[in-house]
Formats: sequence, C-alpha cells, structure tokens
Amino acid sequence: MLSLNANELLSLKNLVDSRRPGYGLPRQFYHDELLYQAEIETIWRQGWLFAGHSCQIPNPGDYFLYSVEGDSVIVVRDDDGEVNALYNVCRHRGSVICQEPEGSVRRFICPYHSWTYDRKGQLLLHHGMQDGLDNSQFGLHRAHAREVEGMIFISLAETPVDFDPVYETIAPVAKPQGMPRAKVARIMDFDVASNWKLVWENNRECYHCTVNHPQYVKANFDHYNADDTLPRVAERLKTVTAHLETKLAEQGMYLREETGMTPFPDPDNGIWYAANRTPLVEGYVSETMDGKQVAPLMGDYTDPEVGTLRVRTLPNFWVHASCDHSVAVRLTPNGLTHTSIRMIWLVDGKAQEGRDYDLEKILPFWLLTAEQDWGICTNQQRGVSSHAYTPGPLSTYKEYNLDRFLRWYLQEMKAGLE
Amino acid sequence: MLSLNANELLSLKNLVDSRRPGYGLPRQFYHDELLYQAEIETIWRQGWLFAGHSCQIPNPGDYFLYSVEGDSVIVVRDDDGEVNALYNVCRHRGSVICQEPEGSVRRFICPYHSWTYDRKGQLLLHHGMQDGLDNSQFGLHRAHAREVEGMIFISLAETPVDFDPVYETIAPVAKPQGMPRAKVARIMDFDVASNWKLVWENNRECYHCTVNHPQYVKANFDHYNADDTLPRVAERLKTVTAHLETKLAEQGMYLREETGMTPFPDPDNGIWYAANRTPLVEGYVSETMDGKQVAPLMGDYTDPEVGTLRVRTLPNFWVHASCDHSVAVRLTPNGLTHTSIRMIWLVDGKAQEGRDYDLEKILPFWLLTAEQDWGICTNQQRGVSSHAYTPGPLSTYKEYNLDRFLRWYLQEMKAGLE
Amino acid sequence: MLSLNANELLSLKNLVDSRRPGYGLPRQFYHDELLYQAEIETIWRQGWLFAGHSCQIPNPGDYFLYSVEGDSVIVVRDDDGEVNALYNVCRHRGSVICQEPEGSVRRFICPYHSWTYDRKGQLLLHHGMQDGLDNSQFGLHRAHAREVEGMIFISLAETPVDFDPVYETIAPVAKPQGMPRAKVARIMDFDVASNWKLVWENNRECYHCTVNHPQYVKANFDHYNADDTLPRVAERLKTVTAHLETKLAEQGMYLREETGMTPFPDPDNGIWYAANRTPLVEGYVSETMDGKQVAPLMGDYTDPEVGTLRVRTLPNFWVHASCDHSVAVRLTPNGLTHTSIRMIWLVDGKAQEGRDYDLEKILPFWLLTAEQDWGICTNQQRGVSSHAYTPGPLSTYKEYNLDRFLRWYLQEMKAGLE
Repeated sequence: MLSLNANELLSLKNLVDSRRPGYGLPRQFYHDELLYQAEIETIWRQGWLFAGHSCQIPNPGDYFLYSVEGDSVIVVRDDDGEVNALYNVCRHRGSVICQEPEGSVRRFICPYHSWTYDRKGQLLLHHGMQDGLDNSQFGLHRAHAREVEGMIFISLAETPVDFDPVYETIAPVAKPQGMPRAKVARIMDFDVASNWKLVWENNRECYHCTVNHPQYVKANFDHYNADDTLPRVAERLKTVTAHLETKLAEQGMYLREETGMTPFPDPDNGIWYAANRTPLVEGYVSETMDGKQVAPLMGDYTDPEVGTLRVRTLPNFWVHASCDHSVAVRLTPNGLTHTSIRMIWLVDGKAQEGRDYDLEKILPFWLLTAEQDWGICTNQQRGVSSHAYTPGPLSTYKEYNLDRFLRWYLQEMKAGLE
Repeated sequence: MLSLNANELLSLKNLVDSRRPGYGLPRQFYHDELLYQAEIETIWRQGWLFAGHSCQIPNPGDYFLYSVEGDSVIVVRDDDGEVNALYNVCRHRGSVICQEPEGSVRRFICPYHSWTYDRKGQLLLHHGMQDGLDNSQFGLHRAHAREVEGMIFISLAETPVDFDPVYETIAPVAKPQGMPRAKVARIMDFDVASNWKLVWENNRECYHCTVNHPQYVKANFDHYNADDTLPRVAERLKTVTAHLETKLAEQGMYLREETGMTPFPDPDNGIWYAANRTPLVEGYVSETMDGKQVAPLMGDYTDPEVGTLRVRTLPNFWVHASCDHSVAVRLTPNGLTHTSIRMIWLVDGKAQEGRDYDLEKILPFWLLTAEQDWGICTNQQRGVSSHAYTPGPLSTYKEYNLDRFLRWYLQEMKAGLE
Repeated sequence: MLSLNANELLSLKNLVDSRRPGYGLPRQFYHDELLYQAEIETIWRQGWLFAGHSCQIPNPGDYFLYSVEGDSVIVVRDDDGEVNALYNVCRHRGSVICQEPEGSVRRFICPYHSWTYDRKGQLLLHHGMQDGLDNSQFGLHRAHAREVEGMIFISLAETPVDFDPVYETIAPVAKPQGMPRAKVARIMDFDVASNWKLVWENNRECYHCTVNHPQYVKANFDHYNADDTLPRVAERLKTVTAHLETKLAEQGMYLREETGMTPFPDPDNGIWYAANRTPLVEGYVSETMDGKQVAPLMGDYTDPEVGTLRVRTLPNFWVHASCDHSVAVRLTPNGLTHTSIRMIWLVDGKAQEGRDYDLEKILPFWLLTAEQDWGICTNQQRGVSSHAYTPGPLSTYKEYNLDRFLRWYLQEMKAGLE
C-alpha cells in the first residue's frame, strides 16, 4: 500500500480539487510521480481490469500472464473450467514461476526449487523442506477473477466492488456476439509514450475524428454532434436507425437513436461499465475499410446488419465488435508517461484463416485508427508536460464524455485519498 | 515553479554557501537533483537564452523549435518581420502544435482538433467549441524574444531582466560581422554527458589548451597568461596587437591588448554578457587549421585581418567569429549530468557551397576543439561524481575566469533562493 | 555519507527488524532505494572488498580500476612492490585520471591540466599553479589495500575493521594454490538484473542445484544434506573423504568430513570470511565437465587430488579452485536491482594457452553454473518485486547458510543504523 505523509496527502488532495470545471486537468496530473502511485493504488489495484478473452484459455491448464506495474498474474483455467487469477510468485523464495507469457501446464512447478502447485494454485509438493509445513498455508496468492461473455476481468483488490451489476449490464447486450466461442485472429502489443488518462481522454471524444480518422468517420455516425448534425445527416441517421432497430428486434437486440457518442461513464451514478449497439452508415456492415463483411458471422448472428457492439469498462477496456469480428483494447499503465496497450482481434471460433478470413482485410480499420490515436496521445503527452501548458476549455458539444471521464477519475481519486 | 520545503531550502542555501573561495565547487553541485531543479528555475527559466540566428528564419512564417527542459518554444518570424517566441502547446488540450524542428507555416494549426493560430500566436479558429469563447483569451502562451545583430535571445521569465544593456554592449562590436545577412553553413548537435556548469568551467580557462587543443593554441595568444607569457611571446603579442589595432581603426573597430583570456563574467558588476575582439597569431586570418581564409568576407569587412570577434552571454552562449565565418555554441541542460550542445557555423549570405567555400575547410578547427572539450567535460563529470572528489585550488594565473564564473553562478543561485 | 532524517532512519530500523526468523526477507529489502543507499554506506563502503588478483598487476606501475557505485579506484603496484588503492580523481578539478580499465604507468598524469602523481599517489607536478601550493596536501585520496595469497582486498572505509584475522584464516589454507604465481586465463564481466543479496542467497544454498546445475552435482557432494544423504551416499562420502584426507595430509593440507555446504558465514561470532577444502566425487580431480585435469598443477600441488579450495568473504567474493585452475567471483552492486559480476579464471603462471591448456575445457563448468545462477537470480528479482510476494519459510535442511547470510546482513545493517 502507498504510504503518504500528511504533507503529501494534503498536496494530492489539493491537486485533485484543483480542476476548473469544464476544463482539462492541470499539468501535475500528467507529471507527478506521487499522484501516479496513488492512481495505481486507488484505481488500478482496486478496480476490475480486463485481462483477456476466455477463448485464449479454452482448456484446463491453459494460461496467459497479465502484469500490472510489475505484478505478474497467471490467468489460468482450472480442472473445473473456472478461471483463476494467481500471482506468479512462488511462496517459498518468491521466484517467478511462469516465464512464458502464455502456455499450458499440468501443474505449476517453480523453476528454482521445484515447489509444485495445482491449477488452482494449491501447494502440492515441497521436497527438501522440513516436516510440519502446512501446504494449505502456502498456496499461490490469489486475485479475483470473473468472466462475462468471454471477457475475463480480474481485480487485485482484497475486497473488490461488486461485479454482478457489470455482469448484468454487459451479458445480455454482448451475448449475441458469441465471444466465448470465438478465437483469436491476432494480438498486437503497443507501448505508447502517454499517460493512461490521455488515452482515455482521446477515446472519450470524436472531436478529433474528422481530421485524424478519415476511415472511421466513413463508417460511423457518432462523430456528429448536436452542433454539426445537419438536417441531412439527422435524416440519414433516423432512417438507418429505424431500419436497424427492426432488424435487431427480430434477433432480440436493441438500439437507441442518438446523436454523438453514447454518454459514458456516468460518475453521478457510479457507472464505470457499459454496453450498447450503434448503427453503421449505409452500406457498411462491418468496421472495415470498405464496410464489407470480411469473416463468418460470429455468435448468434444470422444477419450481418447488427451495427456495432461496444463494451467498455474503466479503467482499462473497450471493445468494438461488428457482425464478423471484434477488437478489444486493453490499457495498462507503464509508468507515469507510458501506457502498454494490447489489441485483440477475435473471429468466430470455427473460422479458418485463408479459407474464411484474411487478416489483411480484418486488421487495417482498427489498426489504422489505433495508431493514429497513439500518435495523438504521444504528441499530447509532450505538450502537457510543458510548464507552459494550462488546461483549456472542453467543447460542451463534443467533449462531454471526456468531462464525464475526468469527473469519474477525480471522484475515484478523492474517495481513494479519504 | 519549484516548491521547496523549509529543510530543502535550507540545505540548498547551505550548499550554495559551502564553496571555499578560490576552489572548485563541492560534489553536490554536480550530483544533487534538487539543486539542478533550482538552477533551472533560477537561472534557466529567468535568464536570456540564445536560441539561434535570425538568418535561420529570414521570412515570415519561418520557425525553428528550441526546447529547454521539456518546454518547447516556437521561434517564428511574423508578418511584421518581428521574432516571436511562442510556447508550442495548444491552448485547448495541450497538444504539441509543431512537430518538425524547423519549417515554415502560414498559420499554426493544432493537429489534434485544428485550433488555428496566426504567426503571432493569436487564436483565429476553434470550430466545434461552444459560442462565447473569447479568442483573445486563448492565444498561444508567449516567451520574450529579442534580436541583436542576427542573434536571437529568448527568456522564459515572466519579467526578464532588462536586455537593453546587452544590446548596447554587443551590437556595436558585432555589427561588422554582418550576421543578419549570413546563412547557415552547418548545424551540429551534441549530447555531452556532463553537467552544464562543467562545460562553462572548461570554456572559461585555457589552462587545458596546450595539452588538449594543439590546433587552437597555434592560432591564438589567449592561452598565454601572466605566468608564461615569456618576453618573446609578449613582444610578438605587442607587435601583432599594434598592427591589428591600426587595421581595425580604419574599419571603425577596436582591440585591447591583454595577456590571457578577456576577463568574463564580472559578477561584482552584474555583467553576464560581453563582446570583444582578440588578435590571431601572425599568419592567421581565420580560425582554421592553417589560418587561411576559407570563405568570402562576411558583413562589413573589407580586409581579412580582423582578428576574432567573440560574443558570450550566460548561461548558454558563445560565438567565435573570424573574417569569413562564425561559430556559435548554444548550451542547454539535459538533466543533471547531460548537456545538449548545438554548434552553428555561419558564412556570408551570398556564399555558395562548393563555389565559395568548402565545409571540409571550415569545420575542422572548431569541431576538433569542441569534441576535445566534450571529452574533457565527460571525463570530469565522471570524476566529480566520485565520493572521493574534493574541490581543488584554482590557478590564479590561469583560472581567474573560472572563478568569475563560479562567483556569478553562486550569486545568481543565492539571489534565486532568497 | 548518507544523511537520513529521523523518519527515514526509523523506517529503515523498523524494516531491518521486520524479518520473521526462519523466513526470507520482505519485499522492501529488494525494492527500497533508501535501504540500498544505507547498504552502500554500511556494508559496501565499510567492508573489505575483493578487487582482483595480484597477478593482474605483477610489476610496478601496473594497475587496474575497480568501481563501486561510481567511485573509481586505481589498484596499482608501486615501486616498492606494494599494492595501493588510489581514488581515480584528480585533486585539482576532479577529472578522472585513468580512463583505461587497466594498464601500466610510469606516473599518473591527469589528462586535463597535467597534474602529475607518482605511483603511490603523491603529487609531483602542477605547472601553471601559483606558488605556495603544498604538494603534500594534494596527493590522490587513498583507500586501504591488503593482499592475501594473491587476492587483493580494498576498503573504502576511513578506519576499516581489522584485516589480520582474515589474513590468518585464509593464508594457510590458500597458500598451496599458489595464486600469487598464477596468471589470468580469462576475465568475464556480467550485468545481472538482480539485487546483490539475491546473488548471495542463491550462492548460500545448494537446494537449487539438482534441478538447475546438472554438471555441478556430478562433481560435488555438497548438495547432499542431512535429509537426503542416503546411506549409500554417506558411505561414498566417507570413503572419498578418508582417501583425500590421507593424500592432503602428505601435502600439509586439511579436510573436514561433513554433509552439505560448510557453514558460512557465522554472524554469531562475527565471521564474514572463510577458507576450506571439500572433496570432489570419485573420478573428479577438477571442476570441469568430465572431471579431468585441464591445465598444469598450480602452486605447491604435486598431486591433482586436492579436492577444491574454497575461499569466501562478505560482501563480494568467493573462489572455487581445483588443482589446475581457480575461478574467482567478484560482486559489485549496480543499483538496487542490478549486480555487476566479474569472473576471473586463473591458471599456473607458466602455463601457455594452446600448449598447456585450452580455454574450451577450462571455462564451461563454471561458466555454465554461473549463467544458470544469473538466470535464477534475475527470475527471483522479478518475483520478489511483486506486491504479492511474501517471504516464505527456509529449509532447515538445505538453506541454513542462507539463513546465516541473512542474519549476518541484518546484523550489519542494524549496527550501521545505530
């Protein structure tokens, strides 16, 4: 746990209170090492973090590692089919047990002195130790793990906040996508020279889309806001929404007509998780460069016209899913000024590369969008690091979600510093 | 601004008072991160810094960037021909605006959301923002900028010290060199693993020249001091000076006969800027390997025998100029133990490479001298970092300017910590 | 010296008291920068450190450098044949004097202003300085140096602990190896991403040997402990020991029969130095891959059956020597999470590579063992850095020396923080 003296605590509290409403965050939020440590404790070691997809570990013994600020966690499926989150640290001398980022094991055997644990982390063997050692006291330390529709979340908190409302919100909306029966088409990892909050701030507004994401704005309506949804655009959106609503209703799905990005998060009601569908523009059935379907339909879908499924949870996850593929983004802070970002493309579990889909058609849309965003965030980090940076006003038309994100963040920090 | 608690402030004040007169600085001056931060605030964010030459940005819209400890400044010529120093940070979300180190722009357009500023930094456009935003409140933040004879100085201070005395001192001496009508022959950047003060300490004495700079001592007299200016050398210096004084008088220039380096700075009188001429040895008309002229005469010169013009300002600039070219050195601290150094070679604006000059003849003299010095400074940084380092006595014959520099530095720090 | 405020001192004292007896050290011991600085002051700047072998500097003027946390020391043989440890920092401006890691000098001449020192560090010349400078006040600062049987130890302490008991313990046991008449066969340097204590912890137990060092356990008995020295093994050990005792007695050497590693260190009696002989298994006369002799006998040996000589001193040295070669290991902390490790292979001084020995036969045994250990230590450092790491119980059968090391370490730290 972070130990702060009275002066440090006071200075952080003052910092958290220093934001001018309607404006961005002051420089110290992207530059203060102590604040960063407090964020790790308050947000990253308390919240629920997307770790990966359940289809990455379909069988007992399959595992992958996920590290948060140096704490490596083994996400492993056990013999009962349950997902476990075990700290990757031997209970004997503290050696890392799994060194490969993913794999499959019968048992976990520490490479140092061969202490051996089962797939739930229970200690089985410790040859060479004195008698009287109680195995039940030396199982691998555990984090919390939950699955919802093929998305695995973990929490490093001792007593994490209730996950059930998250499950209840996400599961019904995400279910038709069939992620649990999907397969990984591609995983890509990025190191972005930007504070994790800037990545979210960028994600929470599409004010920057027209200039920076030409391919994205061709496929979507959500960069149009109250100020620039011209009558012609409003008419198109109305028509497209009405058409899609009918289609979805047949498949038991739901859509809400709205201009601009769906409001998220909702700090006034403590909401840091969401799932919804949005329409694509006319002629687009998938977020691809030309809008065409590029892989077999996923999950329960019987028709490619399903718009896009969007799931997001703070502080580290969002996914955009079309009828034929989904793209998850996982953020992990890597120091004050860097963020490790993993992107995971899923397709239907039975699809075969070459026969049923071609990565060259699946990847470009979101890879391009992502790399444009990483460039933007890197550039912004350099700017907000300047002593000359002063927070500017946010657009009430186009940056309302960014304001919501900042308010959520400050609320969490305030609570954490109490 | 640097915020220090009472203990930190006291410890810095004690450190600043700890130098034994006539000796070098104690180890902590090259090893204490807090002192370094105080130097940045007290000296680097308060003083006037040489940024570059005006001939680097001859036309409206031409700009180059200069960064000091992460604060990027756009040095740009506006439509009135004035030089502006604008912080390279958008007033909206803080993104860096100019990413290229130099270029030419019609307007500054932020790549994030297209906020648009004119060449003086005034906000012109902010499509997508709510009404009622007062453009005049959101121009780019400004630093101060002044030009003197083709040398651009900026200050990050809110209210910098008066530049007029600097102008009045430098302008008349530098004028004949004609730097405003010059052109860049070459720019080279170095990262030297040495605290910025050691680079100055090295620059302020020629005790090291005989062993380390064989080419320099062939061309100059100033490494001879009161203790080793033998009668034969004194006689030569007298003759050379008398000859050059006559020559210069015809061109309205001035020279003072003296042994050793010209005294600089003058902390007792608050003088951190200077300009003067010194003679070269017999047969040398330019600081080149063989002393021969290697490019057309610059500025108002009508005769190559002009000695060398030397201009220097603390904390970051010196220039050595011969009849045919000038070499500026710009220092920028890059953390406690590194200094970024830029060298700029100028020649007459009308000279053409290949036809009128050849870089292979212009560069070696100062490039060699500089690289010898960077090696010395790196070596010294390693030594003074040792716990075994104790400051030694300075030579009263040969290191009087180093003593002056240290006294100037301590005086500035003392004032800054009041 | 390290300056700690009252809170820092208290927190370090509490940390040092926080170990649960019989368990490993808590995470902060491998993660706290302040503790590391205290270790440097208390242990590394106070203790005796193995620097190198005397055969590396056989003649007057021969030197090598050894750096501890940025403090470079010149270990040089003077004209009287004595070894001197001189700080590599000029007394004038603090420049590093010797830049090459080893060499031979007539005098030490500072490359900056040519201040000149003799091989004992006395200042001889300082051309260019004012009169009245007392040379005797400006000799190079000195560390302490002692030689024992070809092993050079230095201490950076003002008044180091008495070295005589170390000498008296090591000299008679090591003498037959003849290290002073040896020559360097090979020096290799490693940077291991592990705190220095983990390297010692690994060195102080052979619990990990069976799985990690297959070649080592073929040659040695000391990985067998009270719990797994089966009757058959005990019988073999007894036979081998009896045979070797007789052989050694003829040569005036001594061996003690025991199971497991020789107890070391002995914190209850303040013992941080040791030397002893251990038997090799049947058929092995040297710690080589096949147990065969691979170089001429060293020192006074007349028979290859001498077991292995082992010398070790805390905090930075151990050596394993067979009849024909010796392998020294020197540790140096390189920050909190890195250790610089030098390995030095010696053979008889008259042996010639190619004719009398072949590096490909000498190096593999210990190089393999070392690299296996460096991998283990790196892996452990990653694990103990996790917030999830909690110290585990040590094996009373197999990790008793590790426990001794930890107790020695805590005792030193406790004393240093008084």
